[in-house]
Amino acid sequence: MKAFVSGGAGFIGSHLVDSLIENGHTVTVYDNLSSGDKQFIQHHLHQENFTFIKADLLDLKRVKKEIQGHDIVFHLAANPHVRLGEKQTDLDLNQGIVATYNILEAMRHSSIKKIVFSSSSVVYGETQESSLSETYGPTLPISLYGAGKLGAEGLISAFCGTFDFQTWIYRFANVVGARGTHGVIVDFIEKLKKNPKELEILGDGKQCKPYLYVSDCVDGILFGFTHAQEKMNLFNLSCDTTTTVTRIAEMVAEEMKLKNVSFKYTGGIRGWKGDVPRFQLDAQKINTLGWKATLTSDEAVRKAIRDVLHANL
Amino acid sequence: MKAFVSGGAGFIGSHLVDSLIENGHTVTVYDNLSSGDKQFIQHHLHQENFTFIKADLLDLKRVKKEIQGHDIVFHLAANPHVRLGEKQTDLDLNQGIVATYNILEAMRHSSIKKIVFSSSSVVYGETQESSLSETYGPTLPISLYGAGKLGAEGLISAFCGTFDFQTWIYRFANVVGARGTHGVIVDFIEKLKKNPKELEILGDGKQCKPYLYVSDCVDGILFGFTHAQEKMNLFNLSCDTTTTVTRIAEMVAEEMKLKNVSFKYTGGIRGWKGDVPRFQLDAQKINTLGWKATLTSDEAVRKAIRDVLHANL
Repeated sequence: MKAFVSGGAGFIGSHLVDSLIENGHTVTVYDNLSSGDKQFIQHHLHQENFTFIKADLLDLKRVKKEIQGHDIVFHLAANPHVRLGEKQTDLDLNQGIVATYNILEAMRHSSIKKIVFSSSSVVYGETQESSLSETYGPTLPISLYGAGKLGAEGLISAFCGTFDFQTWIYRFANVVGARGTHGVIVDFIEKLKKNPKELEILGDGKQCKPYLYVSDCVDGILFGFTHAQEKMNLFNLSCDTTTTVTRIAEMVAEEMKLKNVSFKYTGGIRGWKGDVPRFQLDAQKINTLGWKATLTSDEAVRKAIRDVLHANL
Repeated sequence: MKAFVSGGAGFIGSHLVDSLIENGHTVTVYDNLSSGDKQFIQHHLHQENFTFIKADLLDLKRVKKEIQGHDIVFHLAANPHVRLGEKQTDLDLNQGIVATYNILEAMRHSSIKKIVFSSSSVVYGETQESSLSETYGPTLPISLYGAGKLGAEGLISAFCGTFDFQTWIYRFANVVGARGTHGVIVDFIEKLKKNPKELEILGDGKQCKPYLYVSDCVDGILFGFTHAQEKMNLFNLSCDTTTTVTRIAEMVAEEMKLKNVSFKYTGGIRGWKGDVPRFQLDAQKINTLGWKATLTSDEAVRKAIRDVLHANL
């Protein structure tokens, strides 16, 4: 198939591209490189079945032009920083919601009907549930990033209902691994490189979330796409375990061979306004179809730490 | 209190304004009159505690200026036509989502923290549930209108989580009554005025939904606002009965004293792409707080038919 991958030079997007190319598909990456990195797709640039377009999704005319002739869209482009919306409140509105609208509208013009979308578990917001399944409601995200994802989900489902699109929406756990450019693991490593004796930890360190290794994430995306054929297919994508922030700090120190690092907590239950301190994702729906993460949350975190430390690509 | 009411010259908005003024509050109506009507607020124009501003929510600079000095925002402005998104796909994106963002951003700049929002039961999309409660998920709207409402809900909850806003979000049933300018009742009356012998009915007529009378709707909005004090308060607002489209057609014919009207069905289970053919809303959450619709769905429909026929304002 001919796949159009928005955000295909980004962290998860580029791993997905690797997998699509490996499976013999033709791939167009559409990325403005605002957070993606050309290095992540370097190895495909001279392949015949690969095209890279450096352009912005907010340029609807360009999206309409470039999307023509594809069979399916994998829409992974977004601002990847959950926290940035606090400072720049229109970032997720534009890069999350308006960009998704442009993708959908361009697809409609080219009669492309299939869209795979990278949503996020942050759409659930802060809840009292011990484990969140896809049937949980109401979804009240507490970050602008989460609002961007929820708004995009709604637009996609509306195009399914109104223009007969078909979709696969994935609500990801925290995805970690090689090419990861941000998040708690990268933060801790950078901080400890500057000062190996002390580590500032945002919040009380008890924040507890599931971490999914990026190759598991890509496998899950493609598995669901192959095995689910409803009009709208929505899945949590996660391992069934969690890791605390303090445990991540300990693992980072271990992998960096640092002893007696003093952890300084900034306090409070969350890392920042809009941070969901604790959640677990119920992935039973996709598990029942036959997919399961190969790594636990702790294993994913440790492997991701090694990836970052050894600059694995 | 000093209330800023977006869409305050519209159908539901103007009834809310009546109620706020009656309760001694100071009201600013901000409306571009794209679907609102100055006639609906005519009786307040010369009152001291009332201000009307004809302006567009997409003009962020203007919203920021005019919103200053208010204590609370009632955000009711939106494209009211569920069906229009099919023809103009960016309508609900702009008037639903971007307009809501502008309201929130303007509030943030003026340190206004309370927002009441008119969402809709269409956010639930098409489901197999006999009755939908607020905890139903996932919300996969099938109309662009529904996507606009869901996206707006997400932005509002994100501003609650990130900037300490407080919200009251209402997912309305189909609201009907005096000043109603569109929808099935108005359509049927207009068609029967043109041809009293035959009535074209979109779909198979078995579409079955709850209809809420507009004064019940306004009462519910203000009741929830007074009685619920969570950070994010989300309620279905509905009676606990439903009415079929064929029954509406019969009642319209009765009220117009027409006999032997021939009903011509266009066929199919829904009126148009994006129409949710059948649903019932569970309003137990707000019922438990002490509010209940005074009219059944059939009573609301009949009263609304009379309002339209007698041009009640």
